Amino acid sequence: MSVTLSQARKIIRHALTKGREMELKPLSVVVVDAGGHVVAFERSDGAPPGRFAIAHGKAYGTVMLGMGGTKQMQRAEDQAYFMAAVNGVFGGQVVPVPGGVLLRNKTGKVVGAVGVTGDTSDNDAAVAMAGIEAAALVGEI
Amino acid sequence: MSVTLSQARKIIRHALTKGREMELKPLSVVVVDAGGHVVAFERSDGAPPGRFAIAHGKAYGTVMLGMGGTKQMQRAEDQAYFMAAVNGVFGGQVVPVPGGVLLRNKTGKVVGAVGVTGDTSDNDAAVAMAGIEAAALVGEI
Amino acid sequence: MSVTLSQARKIIRHALTKGREMELKPLSVVVVDAGGHVVAFERSDGAPPGRFAIAHGKAYGTVMLGMGGTKQMQRAEDQAYFMAAVNGVFGGQVVPVPGGVLLRNKTGKVVGAVGVTGDTSDNDAAVAMAGIEAAALVGEI
Amino acid sequence: MSVTLSQARKIIRHALTKGREMELKPLSVVVVDAGGHVVAFERSDGAPPGRFAIAHGKAYGTVMLGMGGTKQMQRAEDQAYFMAAVNGVFGGQVVPVPGGVLLRNKTGKVVGAVGVTGDTSDNDAAVAMAGIEAAALVGEI
Repeated sequence: MSVTLSQARKIIRHALTKGREMELKPLSVVVVDAGGHVVAFERSDGAPPGRFAIAHGKAYGTVMLGMGGTKQMQRAEDQAYFMAAVNGVFGGQVVPVPGGVLLRNKTGKVVGAVGVTGDTSDNDAAVAMAGIEAAALVGEI
Repeated sequence: MSVTLSQARKIIRHALTKGREMELKPLSVVVVDAGGHVVAFERSDGAPPGRFAIAHGKAYGTVMLGMGGTKQMQRAEDQAYFMAAVNGVFGGQVVPVPGGVLLRNKTGKVVGAVGVTGDTSDNDAAVAMAGIEAAALVGEI
Repeated sequence: MSVTLSQARKIIRHALTKGREMELKPLSVVVVDAGGHVVAFERSDGAPPGRFAIAHGKAYGTVMLGMGGTKQMQRAEDQAYFMAAVNGVFGGQVVPVPGGVLLRNKTGKVVGAVGVTGDTSDNDAAVAMAGIEAAALVGEI
Repeated sequence: MSVTLSQARKIIRHALTKGREMELKPLSVVVVDAGGHVVAFERSDGAPPGRFAIAHGKAYGTVMLGMGGTKQMQRAEDQAYFMAAVNGVFGGQVVPVPGGVLLRNKTGKVVGAVGVTGDTSDNDAAVAMAGIEAAALVGEI
Protein backbone atom coordinates (compact mmCIF):
# COMPACT_ATOMS: atom_id res chain seq x y z
CA MET A 1 0.00 0.00 0.00
CA SER A 2 1.18 3.47 -0.90
CA VAL A 3 -0.31 6.83 0.02
CA THR A 4 -3.35 7.62 -2.18
CA LEU A 5 -3.96 10.83 -4.14
CA SER A 6 -6.83 11.64 -1.80
CA GLN A 7 -4.53 11.35 1.24
CA ALA A 8 -1.81 13.35 -0.52
CA ARG A 9 -4.26 16.18 -1.23
CA LYS A 10 -5.31 16.26 2.42
CA ILE A 11 -1.71 16.43 3.57
CA ILE A 12 -0.86 19.25 1.17
CA ARG A 13 -3.95 21.34 1.90
CA HIS A 14 -3.64 21.06 5.66
CA ALA A 15 0.10 21.75 5.58
CA LEU A 16 -0.41 24.89 3.47
CA THR A 17 -3.27 26.05 5.72
CA LYS A 18 -1.14 25.46 8.81
CA GLY A 19 1.67 27.49 7.23
CA ARG A 20 -0.65 30.43 6.64
CA GLU A 21 -1.96 30.20 10.24
CA MET A 22 1.63 30.28 11.53
CA GLU A 23 2.32 33.21 9.14
CA LEU A 24 5.23 31.38 7.51
CA LYS A 25 6.76 32.29 4.17
CA PRO A 26 5.06 30.78 1.06
CA LEU A 27 5.44 27.00 1.31
CA SER A 28 5.73 24.16 -1.17
CA VAL A 29 4.71 20.60 -0.34
CA VAL A 30 5.31 17.32 -2.14
CA VAL A 31 4.00 13.84 -1.34
CA VAL A 32 5.85 10.80 -2.77
CA ASP A 33 4.82 7.15 -2.65
CA ALA A 34 6.63 4.19 -1.05
CA GLY A 35 8.95 4.03 -4.07
CA GLY A 36 9.84 7.73 -3.88
CA HIS A 37 7.70 8.68 -6.91
CA VAL A 38 5.69 11.92 -6.91
CA VAL A 39 1.97 11.64 -6.14
CA ALA A 40 1.13 15.34 -5.71
CA PHE A 41 2.81 18.73 -5.31
CA GLU A 42 1.74 22.32 -4.77
CA ARG A 43 3.86 25.50 -4.70
CA SER A 44 2.32 28.59 -3.07
CA ASP A 45 2.21 31.83 -5.04
CA GLY A 46 5.23 33.95 -4.20
CA ALA A 47 7.60 31.04 -3.51
CA PRO A 48 10.85 30.94 -5.55
CA PRO A 49 10.69 28.83 -8.75
CA GLY A 50 13.07 26.08 -7.58
CA ARG A 51 10.92 24.77 -4.76
CA PHE A 52 9.89 21.51 -6.40
CA ALA A 53 13.47 20.23 -6.48
CA ILE A 54 14.08 21.02 -2.81
CA ALA A 55 10.77 19.59 -1.56
CA HIS A 56 11.34 16.52 -3.72
CA GLY A 57 14.89 16.08 -2.41
CA LYS A 58 13.60 16.06 1.15
CA ALA A 59 10.85 13.52 0.47
CA TYR A 60 12.83 11.33 -1.95
CA GLY A 61 15.81 11.00 0.38
CA THR A 62 13.48 10.19 3.25
CA VAL A 63 11.96 7.25 1.39
CA MET A 64 15.20 5.97 -0.10
CA LEU A 65 16.98 5.99 3.27
CA GLY A 66 13.91 5.07 5.36
CA MET A 67 14.84 7.97 7.63
CA GLY A 68 13.26 11.42 8.16
CA GLY A 69 15.11 14.66 7.39
CA THR A 70 15.81 15.48 11.03
CA LYS A 71 17.65 12.17 11.49
CA GLN A 72 19.42 12.64 8.15
CA MET A 73 20.67 16.04 9.30
CA GLN A 74 22.10 14.51 12.48
CA ARG A 75 23.88 11.91 10.36
CA ALA A 76 25.19 14.62 8.01
CA GLU A 77 26.52 16.60 10.96
CA ASP A 78 28.16 13.51 12.52
CA GLN A 79 29.60 12.09 9.30
CA ALA A 80 29.50 14.62 6.47
CA TYR A 81 31.37 12.46 3.95
CA PHE A 82 28.83 9.65 4.41
CA MET A 83 25.84 11.82 3.49
CA ALA A 84 27.86 13.31 0.62
CA ALA A 85 28.56 9.79 -0.65
CA VAL A 86 24.92 8.75 -0.21
CA ASN A 87 23.91 11.74 -2.30
CA GLY A 88 26.36 10.64 -4.94
CA VAL A 89 24.77 7.22 -5.34
CA PHE A 90 21.29 8.80 -5.53
CA GLY A 91 22.31 11.25 -8.26
CA GLY A 92 22.43 14.27 -5.97
CA GLN A 93 18.71 14.00 -5.27
CA VAL A 94 18.80 13.90 -1.44
CA VAL A 95 18.27 17.03 0.70
CA PRO A 96 19.11 15.89 4.28
CA VAL A 97 17.37 18.51 6.45
CA PRO A 98 14.15 18.73 8.49
CA GLY A 99 11.01 19.00 6.40
CA GLY A 100 11.36 15.51 4.97
CA VAL A 101 8.99 13.28 6.94
CA LEU A 102 8.51 9.51 6.56
CA LEU A 103 4.86 8.47 6.19
CA ARG A 104 3.61 5.32 7.90
CA ASN A 105 0.09 3.92 7.97
CA LYS A 106 -1.60 2.83 11.20
CA THR A 107 0.04 -0.62 11.03
CA GLY A 108 3.52 0.92 10.81
CA LYS A 109 4.21 0.22 7.15
CA VAL A 110 6.03 2.94 5.17
CA VAL A 111 3.60 4.32 2.57
CA GLY A 112 5.61 7.31 1.31
CA ALA A 113 7.05 10.62 2.48
CA VAL A 114 6.26 14.32 2.62
CA GLY A 115 8.66 17.14 1.76
CA VAL A 116 7.98 20.73 2.84
CA THR A 117 10.15 23.74 2.04
CA GLY A 118 9.89 27.51 2.30
CA ASP A 119 10.40 28.56 5.91
CA THR A 120 12.95 27.42 8.51
CA SER A 121 13.58 23.69 8.32
CA ASP A 122 11.97 23.20 11.73
CA ASN A 123 8.83 25.07 10.71
CA ASP A 124 8.77 23.08 7.48
CA ALA A 125 8.77 19.86 9.55
CA ALA A 126 6.05 21.13 11.93
CA VAL A 127 3.79 21.95 9.03
CA ALA A 128 4.40 18.56 7.41
CA MET A 129 3.38 16.86 10.67
CA ALA A 130 0.16 18.91 10.83
CA GLY A 131 -0.75 17.80 7.31
CA ILE A 132 0.05 14.17 8.05
CA GLU A 133 -2.10 14.12 11.19
CA ALA A 134 -5.02 15.59 9.26
CA ALA A 135 -4.76 12.64 6.87
CA ALA A 136 -4.78 10.14 9.77
CA LEU A 137 -1.29 8.89 8.95
CA VAL A 138 1.82 8.76 11.15
CA GLY A 139 4.86 10.94 10.50
CA GLU A 140 8.49 10.25 11.46
CA ILE A 141 10.82 13.24 11.33
CA MET B 1 2.42 37.09 -14.85
CA SER B 2 2.49 33.37 -14.36
CA VAL B 3 -0.30 30.90 -13.74
CA THR B 4 -1.34 30.96 -10.06
CA LEU B 5 -1.67 27.96 -7.76
CA SER B 6 -5.42 28.52 -7.70
CA GLN B 7 -5.59 28.36 -11.51
CA ALA B 8 -3.31 25.32 -11.57
CA ARG B 9 -5.60 23.50 -9.15
CA LYS B 10 -8.62 24.26 -11.33
CA ILE B 11 -6.85 22.98 -14.44
CA ILE B 12 -5.79 19.76 -12.74
CA ARG B 13 -9.16 19.02 -11.14
CA HIS B 14 -11.13 19.64 -14.30
CA ALA B 15 -8.70 17.68 -16.44
CA LEU B 16 -8.91 14.69 -14.10
CA THR B 17 -12.71 14.93 -13.96
CA LYS B 18 -12.89 15.11 -17.75
CA GLY B 19 -10.66 12.04 -17.98
CA ARG B 20 -13.00 10.07 -15.75
CA GLU B 21 -16.04 11.22 -17.77
CA MET B 22 -14.31 10.05 -20.96
CA GLU B 23 -13.41 6.77 -19.18
CA LEU B 24 -9.71 7.21 -19.93
CA LYS B 25 -6.90 5.39 -18.15
CA PRO B 26 -5.70 6.96 -14.85
CA LEU B 27 -4.23 10.36 -15.75
CA SER B 28 -1.47 12.54 -14.34
CA VAL B 29 -1.42 16.31 -14.81
CA VAL B 30 1.28 18.90 -14.19
CA VAL B 31 1.13 22.70 -14.45
CA VAL B 32 4.35 24.66 -14.87
CA ASP B 33 4.84 28.43 -14.78
CA ALA B 34 6.20 30.79 -17.46
CA GLY B 35 9.75 29.71 -16.50
CA GLY B 36 8.94 25.98 -16.85
CA HIS B 37 8.99 25.42 -13.06
CA VAL B 38 6.42 23.15 -11.40
CA VAL B 39 3.41 24.83 -9.75
CA ALA B 40 1.25 21.76 -9.10
CA PHE B 41 0.97 18.09 -10.00
CA GLU B 42 -1.40 15.20 -9.31
CA ARG B 43 -1.09 11.51 -10.25
CA SER B 44 -4.28 9.42 -10.20
CA ASP B 45 -4.29 6.21 -8.18
CA GLY B 46 -3.46 3.26 -10.43
CA ALA B 47 -1.19 5.21 -12.80
CA PRO B 48 2.38 3.86 -13.20
CA PRO B 49 4.99 5.45 -10.90
CA GLY B 50 6.94 7.28 -13.61
CA ARG B 51 4.17 9.64 -14.65
CA PHE B 52 5.62 12.82 -13.17
CA ALA B 53 8.65 12.67 -15.44
CA ILE B 54 6.58 12.26 -18.60
CA ALA B 55 3.96 14.90 -17.74
CA HIS B 56 6.78 17.28 -16.77
CA GLY B 57 8.65 16.59 -20.01
CA LYS B 58 5.57 17.55 -22.02
CA ALA B 59 4.94 20.79 -20.11
CA TYR B 60 8.58 21.81 -19.70
CA GLY B 61 9.38 21.37 -23.39
CA THR B 62 6.25 23.32 -24.30
CA VAL B 63 7.34 26.34 -22.27
CA MET B 64 11.01 26.19 -23.26
CA LEU B 65 10.19 25.99 -26.98
CA GLY B 66 7.07 28.22 -26.81
CA MET B 67 5.30 25.52 -28.80
CA GLY B 68 2.63 22.96 -27.81
CA GLY B 69 3.27 19.20 -27.96
CA THR B 70 1.24 18.66 -31.13
CA LYS B 71 3.44 21.13 -33.02
CA GLN B 72 6.56 19.64 -31.45
CA MET B 73 5.54 16.19 -32.68
CA GLN B 74 5.15 17.51 -36.25
CA ARG B 75 8.65 18.95 -35.96
CA ALA B 76 10.00 15.65 -34.56
CA GLU B 77 8.45 13.74 -37.47
CA ASP B 78 9.79 16.21 -40.06
CA GLN B 79 13.25 16.59 -38.59
CA ALA B 80 14.01 13.97 -35.93
CA TYR B 81 17.65 15.04 -35.46
CA PHE B 82 16.56 18.59 -34.63
CA MET B 83 14.29 17.49 -31.75
CA ALA B 84 17.02 15.10 -30.58
CA ALA B 85 19.48 18.01 -30.52
CA VAL B 86 16.95 20.23 -28.73
CA ASN B 87 16.59 17.51 -26.13
CA GLY B 88 20.35 17.47 -25.74
CA VAL B 89 20.54 21.13 -24.86
CA PHE B 90 17.63 20.78 -22.41
CA GLY B 91 19.18 17.81 -20.61
CA GLY B 92 16.81 15.26 -22.11
CA GLN B 93 13.82 16.84 -20.39
CA VAL B 94 11.59 17.42 -23.43
CA VAL B 95 8.81 14.96 -24.43
CA PRO B 96 7.59 16.23 -27.85
CA VAL B 97 4.11 14.71 -28.16
CA PRO B 98 0.50 15.90 -27.72
CA GLY B 99 -0.54 16.46 -24.12
CA GLY B 100 1.84 19.39 -23.66
CA VAL B 101 -0.26 22.56 -24.01
CA LEU B 102 0.97 26.16 -23.88
CA LEU B 103 -1.00 28.37 -21.49
CA ARG B 104 -1.85 31.96 -22.42
CA ASN B 105 -3.90 34.51 -20.52
CA LYS B 106 -6.72 36.50 -22.13
CA THR B 107 -4.25 39.10 -23.45
CA GLY B 108 -2.19 36.42 -25.21
CA LYS B 109 0.78 36.37 -22.84
CA VAL B 110 2.35 32.96 -22.09
CA VAL B 111 1.78 32.17 -18.41
CA GLY B 112 2.94 28.53 -18.31
CA ALA B 113 2.06 25.11 -19.69
CA VAL B 114 0.10 21.97 -18.86
CA GLY B 115 1.31 18.39 -19.32
CA VAL B 116 -1.11 15.46 -19.30
CA THR B 117 -0.17 11.79 -19.64
CA GLY B 118 -1.87 8.43 -19.21
CA ASP B 119 -4.07 7.76 -22.22
CA THR B 120 -3.46 8.26 -25.96
CA SER B 121 -1.56 11.47 -26.65
CA ASP B 122 -4.62 12.94 -28.38
CA ASN B 123 -6.88 12.19 -25.42
CA ASP B 124 -4.23 13.63 -23.10
CA ALA B 125 -4.34 16.88 -25.12
CA ALA B 126 -8.17 16.99 -25.15
CA VAL B 127 -8.28 16.64 -21.39
CA ALA B 128 -5.65 19.35 -20.92
CA MET B 129 -7.76 21.73 -23.04
CA ALA B 130 -10.85 20.97 -20.93
CA GLY B 131 -8.94 21.85 -17.77
CA ILE B 132 -7.55 25.04 -19.28
CA GLU B 133 -10.98 26.25 -20.40
CA ALA B 134 -12.37 25.66 -16.92
CA ALA B 135 -9.67 27.99 -15.58
CA ALA B 136 -10.60 30.69 -18.12
CA LEU B 137 -7.20 30.53 -19.79
CA VAL B 138 -6.30 29.83 -23.42
CA GLY B 139 -4.50 26.66 -24.52
CA GLU B 140 -2.33 26.15 -27.58
CA ILE B 141 -1.67 22.55 -28.55
CA MET C 1 2.17 -4.96 -1.93
CA SER C 2 5.42 -5.46 -3.77
CA VAL C 3 7.13 -8.66 -4.83
CA THR C 4 8.91 -10.31 -1.86
CA LEU C 5 12.51 -11.49 -1.76
CA SER C 6 11.27 -15.07 -1.58
CA GLN C 7 9.22 -14.60 -4.78
CA ALA C 8 12.13 -12.83 -6.46
CA ARG C 9 14.45 -15.75 -5.68
CA LYS C 10 11.96 -18.21 -7.15
CA ILE C 11 11.64 -16.16 -10.33
CA ILE C 12 15.41 -15.89 -10.77
CA ARG C 13 16.17 -19.56 -10.07
CA HIS C 14 13.47 -20.86 -12.36
CA ALA C 15 14.37 -18.43 -15.11
CA LEU C 16 18.05 -19.46 -14.97
CA THR C 17 17.11 -23.15 -14.89
CA LYS C 18 14.82 -22.69 -17.89
CA GLY C 19 17.62 -20.93 -19.74
CA ARG C 20 19.95 -23.87 -19.18
CA GLU C 21 17.24 -26.32 -20.29
CA MET C 22 16.77 -24.29 -23.49
CA GLU C 23 20.59 -24.22 -23.87
CA LEU C 24 20.61 -20.41 -24.07
CA LYS C 25 23.67 -18.23 -23.54
CA PRO C 26 24.50 -17.34 -19.89
CA LEU C 27 21.59 -15.25 -18.59
CA SER C 28 21.21 -12.47 -16.04
CA VAL C 29 17.94 -11.79 -14.22
CA VAL C 30 16.80 -8.87 -12.09
CA VAL C 31 13.58 -8.42 -10.10
CA VAL C 32 12.48 -4.90 -9.13
CA ASP C 33 9.62 -3.85 -6.87
CA ALA C 34 6.54 -1.75 -7.69
CA GLY C 35 8.68 1.40 -7.40
CA GLY C 36 11.35 0.10 -9.77
CA HIS C 37 13.89 -0.60 -6.99
CA VAL C 38 16.08 -3.72 -7.10
CA VAL C 39 15.01 -6.66 -4.93
CA ALA C 40 17.35 -9.33 -6.31
CA PHE C 41 19.73 -9.99 -9.19
CA GLU C 42 21.92 -12.84 -10.42
CA ARG C 43 24.39 -12.94 -13.31
CA SER C 44 25.42 -16.36 -14.64
CA ASP C 45 29.11 -17.19 -14.88
CA GLY C 46 30.38 -16.43 -18.37
CA ALA C 47 27.99 -13.53 -19.04
CA PRO C 48 29.61 -10.17 -19.97
CA PRO C 49 30.19 -7.78 -17.05
CA GLY C 50 27.61 -5.14 -18.08
CA ARG C 51 24.56 -7.35 -17.69
CA PHE C 52 23.17 -5.71 -14.57
CA ALA C 53 22.62 -2.40 -16.34
CA ILE C 54 20.78 -3.99 -19.26
CA ALA C 55 18.59 -6.29 -17.14
CA HIS C 56 17.84 -3.33 -14.85
CA GLY C 57 16.97 -1.08 -17.80
CA LYS C 58 14.44 -3.62 -19.03
CA ALA C 59 12.78 -4.06 -15.63
CA TYR C 60 12.97 -0.40 -14.53
CA GLY C 61 11.46 0.91 -17.75
CA THR C 62 8.71 -1.69 -17.53
CA VAL C 63 7.65 -0.48 -14.08
CA MET C 64 8.01 3.22 -14.80
CA LEU C 65 5.94 3.00 -17.98
CA GLY C 66 3.56 0.29 -16.73
CA MET C 67 4.26 -1.55 -19.99
CA GLY C 68 6.29 -4.69 -20.79
CA GLY C 69 9.34 -4.62 -23.06
CA THR C 70 7.58 -6.18 -26.04
CA LYS C 71 5.01 -3.35 -26.05
CA GLN C 72 7.76 -0.79 -25.49
CA MET C 73 9.61 -2.10 -28.54
CA GLN C 74 6.48 -1.73 -30.68
CA ARG C 75 6.16 1.87 -29.47
CA ALA C 76 9.86 2.51 -30.17
CA GLU C 77 9.45 1.16 -33.71
CA ASP C 78 6.29 3.21 -34.34
CA GLN C 79 7.54 6.45 -32.77
CA ALA C 80 11.29 6.36 -32.18
CA TYR C 81 11.56 9.97 -30.98
CA PHE C 82 8.95 9.32 -28.27
CA MET C 83 10.89 6.43 -26.69
CA ALA C 84 14.10 8.46 -27.04
CA ALA C 85 12.44 11.33 -25.18
CA VAL C 86 11.04 9.00 -22.53
CA ASN C 87 14.53 7.67 -21.97
CA GLY C 88 15.74 11.23 -21.55
CA VAL C 89 13.34 11.97 -18.72
CA PHE C 90 14.30 8.71 -17.00
CA GLY C 91 18.03 9.43 -17.17
CA GLY C 92 18.73 6.98 -19.97
CA GLN C 93 17.71 4.06 -17.75
CA VAL C 94 15.08 2.45 -20.01
CA VAL C 95 15.89 -0.48 -22.34
CA PRO C 96 12.72 -0.91 -24.48
CA VAL C 97 13.03 -4.49 -25.77
CA PRO C 98 11.52 -7.89 -24.90
CA GLY C 99 12.83 -9.40 -21.68
CA GLY C 100 11.25 -6.71 -19.49
CA VAL C 101 8.06 -8.23 -18.05
CA LEU C 102 5.52 -6.49 -15.81
CA LEU C 103 4.65 -8.48 -12.67
CA ARG C 104 1.08 -8.57 -11.40
CA ASN C 105 -0.32 -10.47 -8.46
CA LYS C 106 -3.44 -12.64 -8.73
CA THR C 107 -5.72 -9.60 -8.17
CA GLY C 108 -4.11 -7.73 -11.07
CA LYS C 109 -2.09 -5.21 -9.06
CA VAL C 110 1.40 -4.36 -10.35
CA VAL C 111 3.94 -5.67 -7.82
CA GLY C 112 7.17 -5.14 -9.80
CA ALA C 113 8.94 -6.28 -12.94
CA VAL C 114 11.49 -8.80 -14.17
CA GLY C 115 14.36 -8.08 -16.55
CA VAL C 116 16.21 -10.87 -18.34
CA THR C 117 19.13 -10.45 -20.71
CA GLY C 118 21.71 -12.68 -22.38
CA ASP C 119 20.11 -14.46 -25.31
CA THR C 120 17.76 -13.19 -28.05
CA SER C 121 15.21 -10.76 -26.66
CA ASP C 122 12.40 -13.22 -27.36
CA ASN C 123 14.17 -16.01 -25.50
CA ASP C 124 14.87 -13.59 -22.65
CA ALA C 125 11.13 -12.89 -22.42
CA ALA C 126 10.20 -16.59 -22.57
CA VAL C 127 12.55 -17.37 -19.72
CA ALA C 128 11.20 -14.48 -17.65
CA MET C 129 7.66 -15.83 -18.11
CA ALA C 130 8.76 -19.30 -16.97
CA GLY C 131 10.22 -17.84 -13.79
CA ILE C 132 7.13 -15.75 -13.12
CA GLU C 133 4.79 -18.71 -13.50
CA ALA C 134 6.90 -20.73 -11.07
CA ALA C 135 6.36 -17.96 -8.50
CA ALA C 136 2.58 -18.02 -9.06
CA LEU C 137 2.54 -14.45 -10.35
CA VAL C 138 1.26 -13.10 -13.67
CA GLY C 139 3.58 -11.65 -16.30
CA GLU C 140 2.76 -9.10 -19.00
CA ILE C 141 5.28 -8.86 -21.86
CA MET D 1 39.59 -15.27 -11.65
CA SER D 2 36.53 -13.56 -10.31
CA VAL D 3 34.05 -14.63 -7.67
CA THR D 4 31.52 -17.11 -9.16
CA LEU D 5 27.75 -16.87 -8.93
CA SER D 6 27.76 -19.93 -6.71
CA GLN D 7 30.19 -18.24 -4.28
CA ALA D 8 28.21 -15.01 -4.40
CA ARG D 9 25.03 -16.86 -3.46
CA LYS D 10 26.79 -18.48 -0.50
CA ILE D 11 28.09 -15.13 0.71
CA ILE D 12 24.68 -13.49 0.45
CA ARG D 13 22.75 -16.32 2.11
CA HIS D 14 25.15 -16.67 5.00
CA ALA D 15 25.37 -12.91 5.52
CA LEU D 16 21.58 -12.61 5.65
CA THR D 17 21.31 -15.59 8.00
CA LYS D 18 23.97 -14.11 10.26
CA GLY D 19 22.10 -10.80 10.31
CA ARG D 20 18.92 -12.52 11.45
CA GLU D 21 20.84 -14.44 14.15
CA MET D 22 22.30 -11.14 15.40
CA GLU D 23 18.77 -9.62 15.23
CA LEU D 24 19.94 -6.79 12.98
CA LYS D 25 17.67 -4.60 10.90
CA PRO D 26 16.72 -5.99 7.44
CA LEU D 27 19.96 -6.22 5.44
CA SER D 28 20.87 -5.94 1.77
CA VAL D 29 23.96 -7.60 0.30
CA VAL D 30 25.70 -7.20 -3.05
CA VAL D 31 28.64 -9.13 -4.50
CA VAL D 32 30.66 -7.56 -7.32
CA ASP D 33 33.41 -9.15 -9.40
CA ALA D 34 37.07 -8.13 -9.81
CA GLY D 35 35.97 -5.40 -12.26
CA GLY D 36 33.39 -3.97 -9.85
CA HIS D 37 30.44 -5.35 -11.82
CA VAL D 38 27.42 -6.83 -10.05
CA VAL D 39 27.25 -10.63 -9.77
CA ALA D 40 24.37 -10.97 -7.30
CA PHE D 41 22.24 -8.90 -4.92
CA GLU D 42 19.44 -9.50 -2.43
CA ARG D 43 17.39 -6.97 -0.41
CA SER D 44 15.53 -8.28 2.65
CA ASP D 45 11.80 -7.58 2.93
CA GLY D 46 11.24 -4.47 5.01
CA ALA D 47 14.47 -2.71 4.01
CA PRO D 48 14.08 0.77 2.45
CA PRO D 49 13.94 0.85 -1.37
CA GLY D 50 17.29 2.59 -1.91
CA ARG D 51 19.48 -0.18 -0.51
CA PHE D 52 20.94 -1.40 -3.79
CA ALA D 53 22.64 1.95 -4.44
CA ILE D 54 24.28 2.04 -1.01
CA ALA D 55 25.39 -1.61 -0.96
CA HIS D 56 26.74 -1.18 -4.47
CA GLY D 57 28.60 2.02 -3.52
CA LYS D 58 30.37 0.16 -0.72
CA ALA D 59 31.40 -2.81 -2.88
CA TYR D 60 32.21 -0.82 -6.03
CA GLY D 61 34.45 1.65 -4.20
CA THR D 62 36.19 -1.23 -2.45
CA VAL D 63 37.15 -2.87 -5.74
CA MET D 64 38.03 0.35 -7.54
CA LEU D 65 40.31 1.51 -4.74
CA GLY D 66 41.54 -1.97 -3.74
CA MET D 67 40.76 -1.01 -0.16
CA GLY D 68 37.95 -2.12 2.22
CA GLY D 69 35.35 0.31 3.58
CA THR D 70 36.90 0.52 7.03
CA LYS D 71 40.19 1.75 5.55
CA GLN D 72 38.32 4.08 3.20
CA MET D 73 36.55 5.63 6.17
CA GLN D 74 39.86 6.30 7.91
CA ARG D 75 41.05 8.01 4.76
CA ALA D 76 37.81 10.05 4.53
CA GLU D 77 38.22 11.18 8.13
CA ASP D 78 41.89 12.08 7.62
CA GLN D 79 41.50 13.77 4.28
CA ALA D 80 37.85 14.46 3.38
CA TYR D 81 38.68 16.39 0.18
CA PHE D 82 40.61 13.41 -1.17
CA MET D 83 37.67 11.01 -0.84
CA ALA D 84 35.38 13.70 -2.29
CA ALA D 85 37.71 13.99 -5.28
CA VAL D 86 37.91 10.21 -5.64
CA ASN D 87 34.13 10.14 -5.71
CA GLY D 88 34.19 12.76 -8.44
CA VAL D 89 36.30 10.62 -10.74
CA PHE D 90 34.11 7.57 -10.05
CA GLY D 91 30.87 9.41 -10.81
CA GLY D 92 29.77 9.64 -7.17
CA GLN D 93 29.51 5.85 -6.89
CA VAL D 94 31.77 5.29 -3.86
CA VAL D 95 30.38 4.93 -0.31
CA PRO D 96 33.49 4.94 1.93
CA VAL D 97 32.26 3.29 5.15
CA PRO D 98 32.52 -0.16 6.79
CA GLY D 99 30.41 -2.83 5.12
CA GLY D 100 32.47 -2.76 1.93
CA VAL D 101 34.84 -5.76 2.10
CA LEU D 102 37.52 -6.74 -0.43
CA LEU D 103 37.34 -10.39 -1.51
CA ARG D 104 40.53 -12.40 -2.01
CA ASN D 105 40.91 -16.06 -2.90
CA LYS D 106 43.20 -18.41 -0.98
CA THR D 107 46.22 -17.32 -3.05
CA GLY D 108 45.63 -13.67 -2.19
CA LYS D 109 44.29 -12.52 -5.54
CA VAL D 110 41.42 -9.97 -5.49
CA VAL D 111 38.31 -11.65 -6.91
CA GLY D 112 35.67 -9.02 -6.08
CA ALA D 113 34.02 -7.30 -3.13
CA VAL D 114 30.98 -7.53 -0.91
CA GLY D 115 28.77 -4.60 0.18
CA VAL D 116 26.38 -4.92 3.11
CA THR D 117 23.99 -2.21 4.34
CA GLY D 118 21.07 -1.95 6.76
CA ASP D 119 22.40 -1.88 10.31
CA THR D 120 25.34 0.02 11.85
CA SER D 121 28.34 0.08 9.54
CA ASP D 122 30.30 -2.13 11.94
CA ASN D 123 27.56 -4.74 12.07
CA ASP D 124 27.29 -4.56 8.28
CA ALA D 125 31.02 -5.39 8.06
CA ALA D 126 30.77 -8.25 10.59
CA VAL D 127 27.97 -9.85 8.63
CA ALA D 128 29.89 -9.49 5.36
CA MET D 129 32.86 -11.29 6.95
CA ALA D 130 30.61 -14.14 8.13
CA GLY D 131 29.30 -14.61 4.58
CA ILE D 132 32.79 -14.51 3.10
CA GLU D 133 34.12 -17.14 5.50
CA ALA D 134 31.20 -19.43 4.66
CA ALA D 135 32.26 -19.23 1.01
CA ALA D 136 35.86 -20.13 1.89
CA LEU D 137 37.20 -16.79 0.68
CA VAL D 138 39.21 -14.15 2.52
CA GLY D 139 37.78 -10.73 3.41
CA GLU D 140 39.69 -7.49 3.97
CA ILE D 141 37.75 -4.73 5.73
